[in-house]
Amino acid sequence: MGELVFVGLGLHDEKGISLRGLEEIKTAEAAFMELYTSLLPNFSKKRLEKISGKKLQVVSRKELEEENGKVIIEVAEKGKAVLLVPGDPLIATTHVALRIHAEKLGIETRIVHGASILSAVIGLCGLHNYKFGKSVTIPFPEETPTETPYEVIAQNKKLGLHTLCLLDIKAEEKRYLSIAESLGWLLKIEKKRKEKIITSNTLMVGVARAGSKKPTVKAGFLRELMNHDFGEPPHSIVFPGKLHFMEAEALVILAGASDKVREMVE
Amino acid sequence: MGELVFVGLGLHDEKGISLRGLEEIKTAEAAFMELYTSLLPNFSKKRLEKISGKKLQVVSRKELEEENGKVIIEVAEKGKAVLLVPGDPLIATTHVALRIHAEKLGIETRIVHGASILSAVIGLCGLHNYKFGKSVTIPFPEETPTETPYEVIAQNKKLGLHTLCLLDIKAEEKRYLSIAESLGWLLKIEKKRKEKIITSNTLMVGVARAGSKKPTVKAGFLRELMNHDFGEPPHSIVFPGKLHFMEAEALVILAGASDKVREMVE
Repeated sequence: MGELVFVGLGLHDEKGISLRGLEEIKTAEAAFMELYTSLLPNFSKKRLEKISGKKLQVVSRKELEEENGKVIIEVAEKGKAVLLVPGDPLIATTHVALRIHAEKLGIETRIVHGASILSAVIGLCGLHNYKFGKSVTIPFPEETPTETPYEVIAQNKKLGLHTLCLLDIKAEEKRYLSIAESLGWLLKIEKKRKEKIITSNTLMVGVARAGSKKPTVKAGFLRELMNHDFGEPPHSIVFPGKLHFMEAEALVILAGASDKVREMVE
Repeated sequence: MGELVFVGLGLHDEKGISLRGLEEIKTAEAAFMELYTSLLPNFSKKRLEKISGKKLQVVSRKELEEENGKVIIEVAEKGKAVLLVPGDPLIATTHVALRIHAEKLGIETRIVHGASILSAVIGLCGLHNYKFGKSVTIPFPEETPTETPYEVIAQNKKLGLHTLCLLDIKAEEKRYLSIAESLGWLLKIEKKRKEKIITSNTLMVGVARAGSKKPTVKAGFLRELMNHDFGEPPHSIVFPGKLHFMEAEALVILAGASDKVREMVE
């Protein structure tokens, strides 16, 4: 029996992979790659093939989900198969399903971790990790007009906690939900529910292109950031809860918030 | 003016660093390293010096915190200084303080992300990321006998959410809080508060050596795991909240929980 190694590609481009991850590719029977669960805006398959000296085979959502990763499993039954995944692998449910499937077939599985958008955004904001409540993904509102993100932000706020909002992507269609679109949708829900969770005075942080050399990290009140140009995707939003002195300082100094934010310390 | 680049070392050993992080070391004026905020059990300074071709200078807690990173700042005022940090940088408050200090001096700062224990443990358990509530660090009970971890687990449970518990380390004294010690402390609080949050029937997941080739990931009821040998540090604990069908399946297949866990799906 062989093995299946999930290797995280980290963030932004092909240089987000760890040295250990690169070794796994080099020693694999075959290396596969999925690029639809997250966006690595500057990733080049060719460059990674050159660095690793290995041919990389892109697998589609269909191959991974509908066909249970058959093409990967066939290799992993005999030798070492590597599946390259954006970010830290096994955060997306799809990979957990594949891992369970492989283990049930008697294939050993391992994970080589990579940098994740989850901790990257926290680090970029300078907010305290242990003050984040549950996180949420904002889906494309025209397709999934759910109020869950609003509810999660509301619940966290009541507890004084920050909320990390990941914004949906449809990589196969090259569509990436923007901060502006997400705010528009949240304001629509606010208009209906009137709980004063998302207003023009709501403090927020917009983060774009985490993991790149020039990420945009901008904190401010919603009215200031609604029309801010955050540039290329991927985008994320953080809605802070109660602020510690050091957190307010981080938002002002590291994320360009106005001095007023210093007065919001509780 | 120069710049200060925070580079994440990722998990476990010197091969956790990303290709981009390695490039930053190679092109730095000077590369510093702190190893006290997290444990990288198999890290070798010598090996990373060999890989990078650069001399690495370890900075102590005193140099970083009491002296505001003076030794690093002096380099960063003229050229590029790199500070290597376990995991994903800027998750520890200490680095945020240094980053703010540097920016106030007019030094540009950047982050090169690394794999973090936060997402690694989630991935290893196979639990759904968006069902985690706030996380908590369990301190050494004899020094900081706080009930906060108990309260955080209780709050998350009421909301049906999972809790990630990081266990404290005193790297300079080579002391690492173990799963067994943490459970002992939580049971003591339970005995006093009687809220039935932590009992012998509480479902939990113990994770040791995340990021290594052979991490221990073991799910079960507290009575089964209290005396389980999780091996070398670092250790973490997850207390699951409500389980989705797929999550129960992951705990059974990937973390060796008994079949009974399948009946706990809500």
